[in-house]
Amino acid sequence: MTASSPQALHLIARPAGEPKDSDFELRPVPVRELAEGEARVRVSHVSIDPAMRIWMTEQKSYWPPVALGEVMRAAGYGQVVESRNARLPVGTWLSGMTGITEMLYTDGRGLRPVGSGEAPDPARILHLFGATGLTAYFGLKEIGQPKAGETVVVSAAAGAVGSTVVQLAKAWGCRVVGIAGGPAKCAQLIEEFGADAAVDYKAGEVGRALSTACPEGIDVYFDNVGGDILDAVLKRLRMHARVVVCGGISQYNATSAPKGIVNHLALISARARMEGFVVIDYLQRAEEAIAAMAPLVASGRLKGKIDVLEGIARFPEALRRVLSGGNVGKQVLALG
Amino acid sequence: MTASSPQALHLIARPAGEPKDSDFELRPVPVRELAEGEARVRVSHVSIDPAMRIWMTEQKSYWPPVALGEVMRAAGYGQVVESRNARLPVGTWLSGMTGITEMLYTDGRGLRPVGSGEAPDPARILHLFGATGLTAYFGLKEIGQPKAGETVVVSAAAGAVGSTVVQLAKAWGCRVVGIAGGPAKCAQLIEEFGADAAVDYKAGEVGRALSTACPEGIDVYFDNVGGDILDAVLKRLRMHARVVVCGGISQYNATSAPKGIVNHLALISARARMEGFVVIDYLQRAEEAIAAMAPLVASGRLKGKIDVLEGIARFPEALRRVLSGGNVGKQVLALG
Repeated sequence: MTASSPQALHLIARPAGEPKDSDFELRPVPVRELAEGEARVRVSHVSIDPAMRIWMTEQKSYWPPVALGEVMRAAGYGQVVESRNARLPVGTWLSGMTGITEMLYTDGRGLRPVGSGEAPDPARILHLFGATGLTAYFGLKEIGQPKAGETVVVSAAAGAVGSTVVQLAKAWGCRVVGIAGGPAKCAQLIEEFGADAAVDYKAGEVGRALSTACPEGIDVYFDNVGGDILDAVLKRLRMHARVVVCGGISQYNATSAPKGIVNHLALISARARMEGFVVIDYLQRAEEAIAAMAPLVASGRLKGKIDVLEGIARFPEALRRVLSGGNVGKQVLALG
Repeated sequence: MTASSPQALHLIARPAGEPKDSDFELRPVPVRELAEGEARVRVSHVSIDPAMRIWMTEQKSYWPPVALGEVMRAAGYGQVVESRNARLPVGTWLSGMTGITEMLYTDGRGLRPVGSGEAPDPARILHLFGATGLTAYFGLKEIGQPKAGETVVVSAAAGAVGSTVVQLAKAWGCRVVGIAGGPAKCAQLIEEFGADAAVDYKAGEVGRALSTACPEGIDVYFDNVGGDILDAVLKRLRMHARVVVCGGISQYNATSAPKGIVNHLALISARARMEGFVVIDYLQRAEEAIAAMAPLVASGRLKGKIDVLEGIARFPEALRRVLSGGNVGKQVLALG
């Protein structure tokens, strides 16, 4: 085996707390002849998502856990480099759940052809027009149901989903307050993503800052983090508010029972709703979301910022970044 | 002042933890001539509700706090014994927010005439066809939206709202599991209120018992208690489940921050909704609820069990009963 042998990243231990390098192992992808109907795909880029942390646990979720020893699950895209399948000619770009691997054997099932010329733009295919953008679009539109003039608060707002929600809510006429960690991200929320105000959760009590930023209360909260921030928002909901339960990054690395939410009874006096959703339920409506977002992208009102690390071996680092808020925009890993 | 002078119960201290007798004070109602347009009402019965504990705090809720020194807020009914108001002839029964007082001066505003003959039945006017029954009816129907065949779980199920929800859900064709404290209440849930199964939260781990009682999971949860029981239910929600947030009795006497809910992310994989409501938003639809419940009452399928204590001085005891689960059915206090 040479240094250029394709490799895949396998999950070999269920992480306790923050994922360690030793929870994963790079193994060579066996090089073999193609069977009839197969294509060989060189995977180019994969998406790094907080939800991966959940897939590594035994926890029941919308997908089964990744089994120990398996290649780590991931969305990605790559190009056909050899083919014995007429529908998958060499040069075709394929997008889907590739996993963290430099090389994939496939009959095309579960993968979607996305052209055959120039390489796809990861900011589009893995971010705005991928699961991230669809999560932001459908979560905000279908669960949050914001109306123009309402106040929308978004947590992990400088992250991939969060920054998309911020921009969509602005485009839909809302007043938008983003919550993020540190002055640099907060400045970016306002200057780059167009938020009306930003709350730095590392700078002091989130509740007080939210009261200042949202003097009339909160109509829609798009939650990516759970924990204390969710609790602070619950106390500040306006009548008939909606809380979109998208994720709980603050809990994903928890090794003990997380500090729970104590303010759920605020849902009563606010007549408010808290609702979870999973983007896979909306994938069949992807075209609708893309049609709505494409003009915003074209006009520069919707920016798909990506944060790229290079090399399959850096997967653990990339994952730690999205779990700790080290990334700005969509975290992508470039392979090979 | 004689022993038979009418008295009113005033809130004189904000309770810390369980309300004490010394948090209240009986004071004579000043006896005076009626002004033009006024009537004097002898209050007969008042409703004792867990929410009263919230009104005694400084906490923002759907009603302002009861101010210190004020007569304690309560729903009740009484009869006009003297009148200088042509619309309120002597003998008229009036229902509404009377407060905990034996004697009320009123121009009729905020009170509803409910006949002039025989005394109203507290099991109807304060329970099934009062705020309690309407809370059960609209909370279950509008927020829970149960479909025949679904599994409905109810906490504080032997209480006033809970026992009504159990019976309505059964009447609407659901499989119903009630949660209550102790074997007597659990037996009553099944034998008297028709629940399919009962979970005794004092008998061991609620989660395990719920898994046994609801092997397919939970479609609708009508929550009156919050806390650990809510957390146990969240982990067992079926797809598209609805959690009706009606109350949180387990937290009302808490003197420190309650143990929070740690399983809210279960709303994501179950695509579930948790929603609060307040019955006052539905009062204008009371006739609809009464029309739907009356035939069930007539046929004996909906029983309005009440638990009556006698004497205004027993208010603190009555309140402690509903907060600790000492009552069975609707707690009522008979005055005078």
